[in-house]
Amino acid sequence: MPEPRRRTPAQAPASPWAPARDRAGQRALKREAVLRCAAQLFNEKGFAASTLDEVAERLGVSKPTVYYYVDSKDQILFECVRTGLELLQQAIREVDAAGGQAIDKLVAGMRQYVAIVTQDFGMCVIRVGEDPLPPANRQKLRRMKAALDHEFRELIRQGIAEGSIVDCDPKLAAFTFAGALSWIGRWYRPDGGLAPADIAEQCIRVLIDGLRAPPGVAAPRARAASRRAA
Amino acid sequence: MPEPRRRTPAQAPASPWAPARDRAGQRALKREAVLRCAAQLFNEKGFAASTLDEVAERLGVSKPTVYYYVDSKDQILFECVRTGLELLQQAIREVDAAGGQAIDKLVAGMRQYVAIVTQDFGMCVIRVGEDPLPPANRQKLRRMKAALDHEFRELIRQGIAEGSIVDCDPKLAAFTFAGALSWIGRWYRPDGGLAPADIAEQCIRVLIDGLRAPPGVAAPRARAASRRAA
Repeated sequence: MPEPRRRTPAQAPASPWAPARDRAGQRALKREAVLRCAAQLFNEKGFAASTLDEVAERLGVSKPTVYYYVDSKDQILFECVRTGLELLQQAIREVDAAGGQAIDKLVAGMRQYVAIVTQDFGMCVIRVGEDPLPPANRQKLRRMKAALDHEFRELIRQGIAEGSIVDCDPKLAAFTFAGALSWIGRWYRPDGGLAPADIAEQCIRVLIDGLRAPPGVAAPRARAASRRAA
Repeated sequence: MPEPRRRTPAQAPASPWAPARDRAGQRALKREAVLRCAAQLFNEKGFAASTLDEVAERLGVSKPTVYYYVDSKDQILFECVRTGLELLQQAIREVDAAGGQAIDKLVAGMRQYVAIVTQDFGMCVIRVGEDPLPPANRQKLRRMKAALDHEFRELIRQGIAEGSIVDCDPKLAAFTFAGALSWIGRWYRPDGGLAPADIAEQCIRVLIDGLRAPPGVAAPRARAASRRAA
């Protein structure tokens, strides 16, 4: 029996819609733009004072368009804080995987931390955080924060064990530098004239080497005076 | 002419009101109790979620009684934050007046800072702050904060000049420890099992001497191992 002749499918008319795969990609991109725009607004004005009308206005779209990508202001905040925390978790995992002494991992982790909390989603973790959210989502984000805190404590424990970090209470040491680095996310202004990397270096130097001048080192003023005398 | 006989004034009937001076003192005490109760509530629940009804309820008085001492929730917050900032300013002035090396003044100032931000009004500076207030009062409190920050930077400058503090950017160094110490006001719980003074010592040690172990000092685990071997 001869094989039935396969019909060549007729060329489909050009669709006015993009292919499904592209559409999904487009949707994800647009959703991310909505979240990022909202994060910027929350960081500038606070969560309570921000409206989805303003998000729509900044993006040049209608409010129903915004609602096509997100369900509510609460959901946006949850996603913004979750994204910021995921960036922080990913950074500490990468730093840990790169290996080396714990003190060097810690410094690398601190640099990443500052880079993230001076950008939209990371800044939203610090400036707004999970407090305004209903209990279930608040708890989810708190668990993520606790896990992140655990990673940093673990790094300090490793450092104490290997002798690269001074013998200290890992919990309070982790709180100390988390506070110092998170504070940057609070006061940092992109137009403030200081680059995040420079802020990070100064801040990390204090946390790693302390403020106390090593004994026997003359003060800059004294050094200058002795140079003049010579 | 005989002098007119002075009439001994009749004993005044006992007044059901306390003497005016006592009344002013009572009023000040009660006003302080209203402010402190409100500060505790703001610190626990946030400013937006707190009501004067709850303040009245916690004090066991009516809402009109609360309004006898304060005008509005905004005014309460202003007074709470102002009081907290005044405590911090007073502490740094006292520390500076006590004299000594700048590094020692700085450590004393840090101890005071932690003691204040773990109490009601100081905690309110950190947890709520001036952000929810109308522009005029927000500006007043920001100026107070800037003055406080200036005092700490000045202390660091003195320390660098005299050689007790490492050569660093005083602005970023002040931000670093203000962040670390303020963070304590955020996470500290009076029922958390850690005394503010112990938290302060650990945190200050990191900020003054750093996290890096001094070279040539064996790790605690290595030390323990060598003791066992001996």
